[in-house]
Amino acid sequence: MREVAVIGCGMTRFGELWEKSFRDIFVEAALKAIDDAGVDHLDSLYVGTMTSGLFVGQEHVGALMADYLGVAPVPAVRVESACCSGGMALRLGFFDIASGNSDIVLIGGVEKMTDGADVTYALATAADQEYEVYQGVTFPGLYAMIARAHMHQYGTTRKQLAHVAVKNHHNGSLNPHAQFQNEITVEQVIGATMVAHPLTVLDSSPVSDGAACVVLASSDVAKKLKKPLIKIVSSSAATDALALHQREDITTLKAVKHAAESAYKMAGLKPTDIQLAEVHDCFTIAEICIVEELGFVKKGKGGEFTEKGETALEGSIPVNTSGGLKAKGHPVGATGVAQAVEIVEQLRGNAGKRQVKNATIGLTQNMGGSGASSVVHIFKKES
Amino acid sequence: MREVAVIGCGMTRFGELWEKSFRDIFVEAALKAIDDAGVDHLDSLYVGTMTSGLFVGQEHVGALMADYLGVAPVPAVRVESACCSGGMALRLGFFDIASGNSDIVLIGGVEKMTDGADVTYALATAADQEYEVYQGVTFPGLYAMIARAHMHQYGTTRKQLAHVAVKNHHNGSLNPHAQFQNEITVEQVIGATMVAHPLTVLDSSPVSDGAACVVLASSDVAKKLKKPLIKIVSSSAATDALALHQREDITTLKAVKHAAESAYKMAGLKPTDIQLAEVHDCFTIAEICIVEELGFVKKGKGGEFTEKGETALEGSIPVNTSGGLKAKGHPVGATGVAQAVEIVEQLRGNAGKRQVKNATIGLTQNMGGSGASSVVHIFKKES
Repeated sequence: MREVAVIGCGMTRFGELWEKSFRDIFVEAALKAIDDAGVDHLDSLYVGTMTSGLFVGQEHVGALMADYLGVAPVPAVRVESACCSGGMALRLGFFDIASGNSDIVLIGGVEKMTDGADVTYALATAADQEYEVYQGVTFPGLYAMIARAHMHQYGTTRKQLAHVAVKNHHNGSLNPHAQFQNEITVEQVIGATMVAHPLTVLDSSPVSDGAACVVLASSDVAKKLKKPLIKIVSSSAATDALALHQREDITTLKAVKHAAESAYKMAGLKPTDIQLAEVHDCFTIAEICIVEELGFVKKGKGGEFTEKGETALEGSIPVNTSGGLKAKGHPVGATGVAQAVEIVEQLRGNAGKRQVKNATIGLTQNMGGSGASSVVHIFKKES
Repeated sequence: MREVAVIGCGMTRFGELWEKSFRDIFVEAALKAIDDAGVDHLDSLYVGTMTSGLFVGQEHVGALMADYLGVAPVPAVRVESACCSGGMALRLGFFDIASGNSDIVLIGGVEKMTDGADVTYALATAADQEYEVYQGVTFPGLYAMIARAHMHQYGTTRKQLAHVAVKNHHNGSLNPHAQFQNEITVEQVIGATMVAHPLTVLDSSPVSDGAACVVLASSDVAKKLKKPLIKIVSSSAATDALALHQREDITTLKAVKHAAESAYKMAGLKPTDIQLAEVHDCFTIAEICIVEELGFVKKGKGGEFTEKGETALEGSIPVNTSGGLKAKGHPVGATGVAQAVEIVEQLRGNAGKRQVKNATIGLTQNMGGSGASSVVHIFKKES
């Protein structure tokens, strides 16, 4: 398997981008990434999008974006795995280079969610239609059940959940690309409009528009560019039952656990080697479960770990320095690629006020639905 | 790049499968392919589906199918490129093995089109929403414009178009998996209900449900099985402008031409080396343009070539021995994989009454929209 590195990255600001179309925001992020990489051609294009058919009435997104970026006839394809479509696009582009087929590949993630579609219905297509959605459950409801179970089994508190949102809003306040750049308090989270008990609107990631891109290259090509070499040392994915009721324990995100274990194995690393991580905090409870599955803390202790500040910018393992899905925003297909953008900017030392000092190894964890699919990448800076 | 071979294949009958659900038909095809391959595990799963979100309200199809096939936590992902989603899934699974990441990969294509969705709207998401669909054009209209231009520029006749449908219905009559197993005549095609002049309903592929799967393996793994070794010697893709008005010449399918040229180059073969081909005859005119772009005949001569019987079962280059999209059916995401199933069955000598004698090299060409994306694979039997 050939070595693969990230040589460029770019993203739009996330938010309600009503003045720009689906294709506009993709091209904006793509041109930034290509310019950053300094390359004059691409061999292939992978685009992560969850459900552009339902959001904007457009499928065939790979070819569309190749066309509007002006790179046709370059091969292009769209990759979907619900909210980890972006992370999966990164993984498949990684294989394209690793196999020797391509030298330079553009990975994009894009979603336009605020153009008038029924967002709750569109997002629910990530759950099991026959056994969950037709019975009336929605994603806030599914994650609320996970939260209640975690509180019951492990004593996780309402306040601990809120701390995830408070931390991520603080980080978002330092990120010029974030949808929300305002600080919030624990009291505000707990007192906000209830969505599905115990989760309030401030436990929930927003509805967003946005795009993010990275340019990958074989390490040989990357070495010729005079830039810090950010290698992808692991790309790993796994699946689990779609429907929550089919899992042995709903507080365990098996797909995350499996993907993480094989990612550590592939890189020859352990959880304590990771210096910062971007994880899929679609709801506050998700981040708590994920830091446990990634092995940053013992099962059941994620809430306490967060409350103590271990995952804060100055903590032992900064998590979601970008603001995460909660504050940076969550244009679903774009999220996995935006996570990679944040880790690359951090490893390059370009993260401004939210910079983690001397970071050389970072991890991204992206997840679909209530955890039926997950993808984990590990990035390593080599000098 | 590691060598990749097809070690198993299976499909449902194509048609109106009202008694079976989306996940049911996938699992039916997958179990047949796995049983045919004789493997006891999978390393990864790729599923091609065009727009299950619009057809059946279900995205997150990779994980869903891994779950219902009972193979989770195996990594799984859905791949989309409109009507060449299946071919693209095959291509990405090919890279997964070629890179050394996986040894055994299941590729599936599946679509459930007859469950009540607005099929014309759903399929139109493969065209350029902003510049084509919102102006009222549909796919029969787009292909009718290509047909008119081809007739005008090259003297292709109405009768020649009909010959594509007549040939493919004859082949379909020999295929127990085909949706239509009845012969039709040139007069019937021309006299059928007009859809978009000059194309009648018998120039058009039907609305179908169906699934098809192949199991890929590294050649090393494949060689251990006591079966004919069917290698994938090329996997190639390309893109073009989505909107017809943005192309220099609407009778030229540039993405097909580019994908074919690089496929021949990758395999070290030329068009005359190909002994049979499955191509994307979504409308009769498409097959005529495609046999030209694949280099089987000079540009503009595809109609005459077909009328003379060169693409018939007994012709110099049998095309769509399965019945093609026209007669076998066109569950859009499944089509590209079903093409591979047909070529593998032919190269194995298992194609029954439609068997092409002594075939060792076959090609599949799958296409999205009005040709904005295309993927070409070449398969070679080694004894």
